Amino acid sequence: MFMFEKPHGMRDTLPGLYETKKKVRRSLTDLIDKWGYQFMETPTLEFYDTVGVQSAIEEQQLFKLLDQDGKTLVLRPDMTGPIARVAASKLLKHGHPLRVGYAANVFRAQEREGGRPAEFEQVGVELIGDGTTSADAEVIALVVGALKNAGLASFKIAIGHAGIADALFVEVLGNVERADVLRRFLYEKNYVGYREHVKSLPLSSIDKSRLLELLELRGGIEVCGRAEEIVDSAQGKSVVDELKALWDILEDYGCTENVRLDLNMVSHMSYYTGILFEVYAENVGFVIGSGGRYNKLLGHFDSPAPATGFGLRIDRLIEALHMKDEPCEIDAVIFSKEQRAQAIAYANEERMKGNKVVLQDLSGIENIDQMTKSFANVTYFIGARKEEQNG
Amino acid sequence: MFMFEKPHGMRDTLPGLYETKKKVRRSLTDLIDKWGYQFMETPTLEFYDTVGVQSAIEEQQLFKLLDQDGKTLVLRPDMTGPIARVAASKLLKHGHPLRVGYAANVFRAQEREGGRPAEFEQVGVELIGDGTTSADAEVIALVVGALKNAGLASFKIAIGHAGIADALFVEVLGNVERADVLRRFLYEKNYVGYREHVKSLPLSSIDKSRLLELLELRGGIEVCGRAEEIVDSAQGKSVVDELKALWDILEDYGCTENVRLDLNMVSHMSYYTGILFEVYAENVGFVIGSGGRYNKLLGHFDSPAPATGFGLRIDRLIEALHMKDEPCEIDAVIFSKEQRAQAIAYANEERMKGNKVVLQDLSGIENIDQMTKSFANVTYFIGARKEEQNG
Repeated sequence: MFMFEKPHGMRDTLPGLYETKKKVRRSLTDLIDKWGYQFMETPTLEFYDTVGVQSAIEEQQLFKLLDQDGKTLVLRPDMTGPIARVAASKLLKHGHPLRVGYAANVFRAQEREGGRPAEFEQVGVELIGDGTTSADAEVIALVVGALKNAGLASFKIAIGHAGIADALFVEVLGNVERADVLRRFLYEKNYVGYREHVKSLPLSSIDKSRLLELLELRGGIEVCGRAEEIVDSAQGKSVVDELKALWDILEDYGCTENVRLDLNMVSHMSYYTGILFEVYAENVGFVIGSGGRYNKLLGHFDSPAPATGFGLRIDRLIEALHMKDEPCEIDAVIFSKEQRAQAIAYANEERMKGNKVVLQDLSGIENIDQMTKSFANVTYFIGARKEEQNG
Repeated sequence: MFMFEKPHGMRDTLPGLYETKKKVRRSLTDLIDKWGYQFMETPTLEFYDTVGVQSAIEEQQLFKLLDQDGKTLVLRPDMTGPIARVAASKLLKHGHPLRVGYAANVFRAQEREGGRPAEFEQVGVELIGDGTTSADAEVIALVVGALKNAGLASFKIAIGHAGIADALFVEVLGNVERADVLRRFLYEKNYVGYREHVKSLPLSSIDKSRLLELLELRGGIEVCGRAEEIVDSAQGKSVVDELKALWDILEDYGCTENVRLDLNMVSHMSYYTGILFEVYAENVGFVIGSGGRYNKLLGHFDSPAPATGFGLRIDRLIEALHMKDEPCEIDAVIFSKEQRAQAIAYANEERMKGNKVVLQDLSGIENIDQMTKSFANVTYFIGARKEEQNG
């Protein structure tokens, strides 16, 4: 049935799921709105040379096409790049931080085997122009608030810092570049591989155990104390201080219950430059969202500015919420020509009351029994009769 | 400033316009919802060989790209094709009409000179599986109701029928094909060209005046009487009867004030097969939306079924509404570390009351005077003080 086919990774959102998505989206955007973030929209297509190149998404995941002048376009792989473009060109002129929200579909080309969606919706924010730890804490507290607002009962935000592994690797290995293999293992969360590699390195047993201890730096604020024992440099100490300050602020927000430190988290392609995080729901084997500080991106758009933000995936959040599709309560009014005017008047009254009412000409129905079954209530205006029937 | 550039025809929707769009979109979708239409979403990308080929949009306006297997994809040029695909494959199984709504961006590649948007939002419905004139009247009445709900004061739906010019052309010229030039003039609304061409044809003066009279068939229900005088065939008479029946139903809906007949309207590429219409606002020089009956499309998806629907353009509706961007009332709370906990508590209280509140660390602000000017109210939690200032 070729006429029914869709491109690989593309999905239809049927009415039940549509209403569920709408409900979840609103539970997030309503809170983001209240926190003073202003929503905006950017085009689906961007130039590869601007937003495409600066994206944190890997090259082979970009959907590309050529415009009429032969320039390469991409379907936006995320919203951070486009918002940075707009902030740099239009919004970031006032010398105070900019808070932007979005709810938008993004595109990631998928391998045939994956079965993953190639288009999915993200809801998120960008806080641009504020380099304080308060800004990092704000976006994390907003994630916590938004997920609670969506009804997610049990979740954790794992918080790391792009600088902690860097500091340790510089101390132990001399420079960051030599740590590429270790960093790759951490990025892939391949801790077995990391351990094996550490053991194979020509290092003192003290240094090896410092590198191995990095894997253990997970938990509450006590992790900071253990981190201070394995990093010596001023750079390393200042990263730990930053995390302690973050924790303090998150305590003021009352959301430390939903966060944990995870200091072996590293950033893909050095995109994040400071505090970074991932969102996990209990019993769900994937990341619902992520975020962090990206202080270099705005510079690529000729407006250097610190920035932080997050993006949550609606599809995965719905899965984590174990939501059933919203049942749709629609009534039907079935009429024949003789009572058409009465049927229209009745349907309009019901709609004014807030009810959803289908108004259907009897002669347009092939199978009346099926129709009756599909609606909550059916009211007939046929010939001279008017009668109601509960479906 | 190349980093700031966007592909041709692509636009950003900044926060003010975003809120305006949201308000207008909701005024339409709320009513569509109440009329029992169920919203759905389809992918941005479709196969060219399915939805692309069946689209009413001209080939050169399609955005195309190749997938990993070398198949041609298109960015959806409208929602009618994708919804027909879903209806045929999944939804249209019950022997009763299907009512689907959508609010979605569609894509039309633009010539460099045009300055027209290449991506814009449409809100619309498809009523599939109902061939009655009641169905045509329903979608027209729904357009009228939706536009009134959006606050549009003065507008007209111009209603035509794909069959009326066809019937006349067959009667006068012998077959439909010979009428291609005339049809083209009507489609382009080039009435001067039409007149000239009619005069040049080797026809009796009676036939010429019948063809010219077609241009005059505009107005209220009285137009049907005049149409009956120039068409003789059973086909032509039945089209006029259909329009009279439509008018009757629209009277029951109480919306004849917002409609007029325009019997020289013809369909692009024979896409529409019956009643068709265009929406005009007073003093605005473009069509806000259009719709009509398309009884052939579902057959291309292996599920022959009659169908009708409409699509409204949000951007043009906003222009017709002469709306100003919604002013955004956001308060700011500015704090220093000493009173951070109090500031957070205060901001959260205000947010619980429904207010939009930005919470800002003083040390993240470069220009405090600019910040103060940008917000409705600013409350300070600095050092030991708490004070409020109206911006």
